[in-house]
Amino acid sequence: MYNMATMKINVDEYLWMALKEDITSEDVTTNAIMREDKLGEAELLCKQDGVVAGIQIFERVFHLLDENTKVEMYVKDGDVVKNGQLMAKVTGDIRTILTGERVALNYLQRMSGIATHTRKLVDLLGDAKIKLLDTRKTTPNMRIFEKYAVRVGGGTNHRLNLSDGVLIKDNHIGAAGSIKRAVDMAREYAPFVRKIEVEVETMEQVQEAIDAGADIIMLDNMDNETMKKAVALIDGRAETECSGNVTAERVKDIIETGVDYMSCGALTHSSAIMDISLKNLHAI
Amino acid sequence: MYNMATMKINVDEYLWMALKEDITSEDVTTNAIMREDKLGEAELLCKQDGVVAGIQIFERVFHLLDENTKVEMYVKDGDVVKNGQLMAKVTGDIRTILTGERVALNYLQRMSGIATHTRKLVDLLGDAKIKLLDTRKTTPNMRIFEKYAVRVGGGTNHRLNLSDGVLIKDNHIGAAGSIKRAVDMAREYAPFVRKIEVEVETMEQVQEAIDAGADIIMLDNMDNETMKKAVALIDGRAETECSGNVTAERVKDIIETGVDYMSCGALTHSSAIMDISLKNLHAI
Amino acid sequence: MYNMATMKINVDEYLWMALKEDITSEDVTTNAIMREDKLGEAELLCKQDGVVAGIQIFERVFHLLDENTKVEMYVKDGDVVKNGQLMAKVTGDIRTILTGERVALNYLQRMSGIATHTRKLVDLLGDAKIKLLDTRKTTPNMRIFEKYAVRVGGGTNHRLNLSDGVLIKDNHIGAAGSIKRAVDMAREYAPFVRKIEVEVETMEQVQEAIDAGADIIMLDNMDNETMKKAVALIDGRAETECSGNVTAERVKDIIETGVDYMSCGALTHSSAIMDISLKNLHAI
Amino acid sequence: MYNMATMKINVDEYLWMALKEDITSEDVTTNAIMREDKLGEAELLCKQDGVVAGIQIFERVFHLLDENTKVEMYVKDGDVVKNGQLMAKVTGDIRTILTGERVALNYLQRMSGIATHTRKLVDLLGDAKIKLLDTRKTTPNMRIFEKYAVRVGGGTNHRLNLSDGVLIKDNHIGAAGSIKRAVDMAREYAPFVRKIEVEVETMEQVQEAIDAGADIIMLDNMDNETMKKAVALIDGRAETECSGNVTAERVKDIIETGVDYMSCGALTHSSAIMDISLKNLHAI
Amino acid sequence: MYNMATMKINVDEYLWMALKEDITSEDVTTNAIMREDKLGEAELLCKQDGVVAGIQIFERVFHLLDENTKVEMYVKDGDVVKNGQLMAKVTGDIRTILTGERVALNYLQRMSGIATHTRKLVDLLGDAKIKLLDTRKTTPNMRIFEKYAVRVGGGTNHRLNLSDGVLIKDNHIGAAGSIKRAVDMAREYAPFVRKIEVEVETMEQVQEAIDAGADIIMLDNMDNETMKKAVALIDGRAETECSGNVTAERVKDIIETGVDYMSCGALTHSSAIMDISLKNLHAI
Amino acid sequence: MYNMATMKINVDEYLWMALKEDITSEDVTTNAIMREDKLGEAELLCKQDGVVAGIQIFERVFHLLDENTKVEMYVKDGDVVKNGQLMAKVTGDIRTILTGERVALNYLQRMSGIATHTRKLVDLLGDAKIKLLDTRKTTPNMRIFEKYAVRVGGGTNHRLNLSDGVLIKDNHIGAAGSIKRAVDMAREYAPFVRKIEVEVETMEQVQEAIDAGADIIMLDNMDNETMKKAVALIDGRAETECSGNVTAERVKDIIETGVDYMSCGALTHSSAIMDISLKNLHAI
Repeated sequence: MYNMATMKINVDEYLWMALKEDITSEDVTTNAIMREDKLGEAELLCKQDGVVAGIQIFERVFHLLDENTKVEMYVKDGDVVKNGQLMAKVTGDIRTILTGERVALNYLQRMSGIATHTRKLVDLLGDAKIKLLDTRKTTPNMRIFEKYAVRVGGGTNHRLNLSDGVLIKDNHIGAAGSIKRAVDMAREYAPFVRKIEVEVETMEQVQEAIDAGADIIMLDNMDNETMKKAVALIDGRAETECSGNVTAERVKDIIETGVDYMSCGALTHSSAIMDISLKNLHAI
Repeated sequence: MYNMATMKINVDEYLWMALKEDITSEDVTTNAIMREDKLGEAELLCKQDGVVAGIQIFERVFHLLDENTKVEMYVKDGDVVKNGQLMAKVTGDIRTILTGERVALNYLQRMSGIATHTRKLVDLLGDAKIKLLDTRKTTPNMRIFEKYAVRVGGGTNHRLNLSDGVLIKDNHIGAAGSIKRAVDMAREYAPFVRKIEVEVETMEQVQEAIDAGADIIMLDNMDNETMKKAVALIDGRAETECSGNVTAERVKDIIETGVDYMSCGALTHSSAIMDISLKNLHAI
Repeated sequence: MYNMATMKINVDEYLWMALKEDITSEDVTTNAIMREDKLGEAELLCKQDGVVAGIQIFERVFHLLDENTKVEMYVKDGDVVKNGQLMAKVTGDIRTILTGERVALNYLQRMSGIATHTRKLVDLLGDAKIKLLDTRKTTPNMRIFEKYAVRVGGGTNHRLNLSDGVLIKDNHIGAAGSIKRAVDMAREYAPFVRKIEVEVETMEQVQEAIDAGADIIMLDNMDNETMKKAVALIDGRAETECSGNVTAERVKDIIETGVDYMSCGALTHSSAIMDISLKNLHAI
Repeated sequence: MYNMATMKINVDEYLWMALKEDITSEDVTTNAIMREDKLGEAELLCKQDGVVAGIQIFERVFHLLDENTKVEMYVKDGDVVKNGQLMAKVTGDIRTILTGERVALNYLQRMSGIATHTRKLVDLLGDAKIKLLDTRKTTPNMRIFEKYAVRVGGGTNHRLNLSDGVLIKDNHIGAAGSIKRAVDMAREYAPFVRKIEVEVETMEQVQEAIDAGADIIMLDNMDNETMKKAVALIDGRAETECSGNVTAERVKDIIETGVDYMSCGALTHSSAIMDISLKNLHAI
Repeated sequence: MYNMATMKINVDEYLWMALKEDITSEDVTTNAIMREDKLGEAELLCKQDGVVAGIQIFERVFHLLDENTKVEMYVKDGDVVKNGQLMAKVTGDIRTILTGERVALNYLQRMSGIATHTRKLVDLLGDAKIKLLDTRKTTPNMRIFEKYAVRVGGGTNHRLNLSDGVLIKDNHIGAAGSIKRAVDMAREYAPFVRKIEVEVETMEQVQEAIDAGADIIMLDNMDNETMKKAVALIDGRAETECSGNVTAERVKDIIETGVDYMSCGALTHSSAIMDISLKNLHAI
Repeated sequence: MYNMATMKINVDEYLWMALKEDITSEDVTTNAIMREDKLGEAELLCKQDGVVAGIQIFERVFHLLDENTKVEMYVKDGDVVKNGQLMAKVTGDIRTILTGERVALNYLQRMSGIATHTRKLVDLLGDAKIKLLDTRKTTPNMRIFEKYAVRVGGGTNHRLNLSDGVLIKDNHIGAAGSIKRAVDMAREYAPFVRKIEVEVETMEQVQEAIDAGADIIMLDNMDNETMKKAVALIDGRAETECSGNVTAERVKDIIETGVDYMSCGALTHSSAIMDISLKNLHAI
């Protein structure tokens, strides 16, 4: 759940923009035909198995339009739902329901799609202590929603953006002259609460990153054997992250390498939505 | 291509927001390590076959950050590209390239994914005169990009939002009392340049929609046989749109029903991205 | 009436801007003299005969400042009012009433002025089936208010803006090479729910527009005789709009030409306001 | 002329909003038909005698869309122009010209209408030392443009808004208990650079305002004789403003009363536009 | 006290920005540990003697986050408080209190620091009729708060900004050619409710300013003797302001010069905060 | 130095707001008297010894108003300057210089004041390896400027805001039940790149924090002896921060405790400005 402070400070702004995107002047059809308030009710139905995320955003969209709209929820974020399951009932002015429906569903479907995808990978991890991370490969202006959905699905967030995490890549290393120098420069410049992560591609670089005192070492596009060796070499002196080509098929092998984390961009850039529908709207 | 007026009035605002989303204070890593301007160059490489869309948005992100960044393009929107193909070269301050890379790619990958998906369906339509439409099932705050990508892929846009098109659904019909009454109310209220579209589910409703003078009749979730009959009954007195469950598998059957349009939400809500990468960044 | 969704998504933003325009720091006079809340009441008096439009906007301005302000309305949008008539009573903190008065009245007076002007022309149309249209010649940042006022006065809205209607003018025709080509290009590019309107000046162009399948043909600055011929030639194959120099004096002649619509820019660009005053504010 | 700082800080924001109001996604017609840049030229023609105001705003709209658009001006703000006179030539991408035309003209026409109206009244004042003032009865979100146009027409601005001027009205007087008390409270509270103006309706109030040390005394809705007496009584101890029912017909009489200023709301709330047109757009 | 209209129109916007500055995504610590609402209470304790200003802003920050937060105040703006004194109790969801605490205190501490500083100087003025003014040397984006705090401390506001007051400095005089010419140009151009202030440095300029009819004459960086002479020369024909190097030490001397006002930039640019703390937060 | 991406994405917005705060309509005095562009030059003079910070912001303000304004700098951020030293020359339209001067100086003076204050404390630290930290006690809407100034002065930034750092305080510990539980909850919830900091007040809590695996332990308001013991107990298993009552007088003692960091709120909440002036503006 987003708490109300987060909602007001960092979420509502996106919801208003999305509403303006869908309603540049007014909902012409609804306003043409329904000139007066009329109380109605509709059912939020799941049309596909999956994991719910964003039910609160779904509700918020209607609350922004009319605070008297009620969303009676029968599920909460993180719940597994089944095709055909009744997720919630929406009660309020029928015009509000018709006008807000699409935007509310667009958020809920996408967020639930991501949570469902994440949960599938997390389930494959089973009891292993490795954790699944997301990336910055999110849909523009959807990050706060997509990163939340990953968490709902059981994943862990990587840095939120370029400002709140340090990740030293090859170009940074090249510019600094060495991993050691890059880590030192970052540690001197960045707020001291930042962990320093270094992306490496070879065993030589792994050693250099250890020597430089990196907090996290990202093993980028390494094969399983090399990763195993890297983890052994690091030996707990830094956290380790497997990055690149992380798919369901490889999960078992990755677990065996002993890395602490694996990150997967597809969670946020290529999840299909979960099909959810607002049905049976009728006056009451 | 977006023209510059569209870009400045309706696109840039989203790009700035996406940049702020990714950079809430500064790119800490880059700024820690690179204290001075340094000219560099990188290659935009396709890592998957598909159709390009958004190359201009990719460029625009860098231009907003620093107008001296050059993007030399070897492909243009709508082009078919192959895995491994060099799409563009980016030249400019290395820090700008590192800072803008992710946002620029997030747009380009998603837009190209949609164009690629669209093109696949359009290719299945072959010489048939039926046209493929998108829907309002877009990612929030991405509509102007996603609807554009559909067009690049060969699709046609349905209404952009609730304000610029009239679509009378069952709740509207219920509220009005009849299709005839709903169409009349819409025609009286809406700007006169709007076509009036009615969503119908039965042959009775088809007849009513014809009698009401609907400009477009949406045949919602009908089976192929019923659609054929509906098209015959309508007989050119209104345009016809097939909606609901439009998939690659059904395309051939839909063509045979004789409808003018078919609309597909998955184009925008469930396309995977096209994998594209910025590689080989080096000082020059 | 604007419904609440329209108000919140597309109206409030302008009202806040207008309040900030009039109050860049605070209402110095009122705040200097009245340091405490004090309940008061004032009367909204009509000082001129006319048609009311915007009474809800008048109320909204006060509600934005203080939701406890009550506006008891004795008229509604579209009502004919007489000089001296009591339109509403406003009750609330006197400071709120003093601070919001001018902005609230500036909207109400201008919108009522437009509705009054529109009604005069509409009354001249009598039983004729021709409809009166507005144009895009509106006051900047007032369009949603002015187009609404036209509707309240009995007029019909033309397109709201450049994005929600297609209107092919001579420069477009020139660029395309022919009317036929321009219509085809527009139909291919524009969302399929758009009607295509073509502006023509000669009988040759009328014929070309018919052949091109235009949905609406705008007869621009034609004399009455030519318009009559054009309407005869079109013969119901497209809707017709008379544009240019539409004044009260010409209305009768225009009706006789048989066109479906006539559009008049003066409704929004040159209507005088309707004089309305907030009077007799007193503590209660 | 607005200087560039004013333009960037306080004008551009309104122009962008007006452009977004007219172009919620793109100029569909123009973009459908003209896919490439094409240099063109158009003429700004005056279609009515009057006084120009806003030619710089007209230019700015095009510059915001495309800084390469050139507006070669043959007149400047404040110039008297004649029906048929060529005011300027616009050269640039034809698409930019078509897209920006309406917004640019909507500003120019309204501002010139106000300047023309103002000049007519100012001309009636002849050599009299009385000055013509505007009021806060402006069109919402147009004040910076309308107050400027009044100045161009030869008028003088009254306070810009509730924050930058003190005007004590009857309700303030009632709340304070007396004019003296109200003036003292205002002088104590307001920034010390404010003049204190008091609105009075009777000779008793005039005397009280003088005694209270008001800087300006507004004679509200007084007949000419009473105003004369009031001016005599005040005898230079405060500036005097005639307010209410200021029309061309009354100007001569008002001059004779000897007041320093007369204020007229109609300048900004009820001026008709000046008819101006962009013509002969052609490729070059 | 700010009244609610001022708060909504001109204050809230800054508070939201400050909250976004401190919470770019969410309060991670609080949200990690407290997943549910929990009612709590905390005490606002003064840790230093001084004058309170901004207690209402302190409350508003919490109200914006959650309107159910209660702030029971035991002091009001302008009150003298002592180290250790209980200023208020805050009751509400503990998460809201933790999340809003820092922003609320940052405002309250700074505003109280300024009020305390101002009060010290005002107390030194004793019964003298001279008034203490602030300047435009405020912290960017804090002016409405800082100028208010000056008033709470007993000071008087100089102009709020460049738009609401006229102050002619040497560069303006140079550009105009003479003080007389500069005053005339300003009087002709500026809204007529503006007083005209002229900054002078020599007795010759004092005489010129008097002759030009300046409303206020600012004696800039003059020594006490010269100021005395200037005041004598002006002899009530303009208000006088002492500017430059106004410190506690000089107050007595400045009073003796007989000037009407003295302005002090340090009030807003160099006041230390007043130490105030939110303590003893506990569940209830 | 801010790089240009940071400037455009996260700095300019504040500068525009500050300009609007100072110029709600226009610079009336300047625009009244100077109707035309006139090239001029002014000198930026230091009037107090100190450390420069924000010279680039000073320049940016003028560039935003007019990109042709030139600021020739003779010092750079971090330089020590002396009373009377020429810091820069500003060349451009005199009106731009007059209009932007106050906002530009308000930033520069405040930032330089903070850098100067910081440098004094850093100099006291001498060769000790302890680092000086800032806090979140910054002026609202000035954080990006004030935290930068601390860095320029030689300090290190603590977390930027509530979203980019985890700091567990007593209320969090209370809600979680124990330090161990609080750290676990934070580690599970927060992005994995966050270090976990715990605020402790007793030796028992120090031990608990060590056992919980805290990355940083903040020793809050401890006396020197206790701190020494705490550092010994921690023995490198976590970084240590001394917080509360950090003043110049205590620096020597704090160094001896062996903590890694000491944080000081006064750097940002109570630094006096550095006096800097723009002088000798003259036409060239």
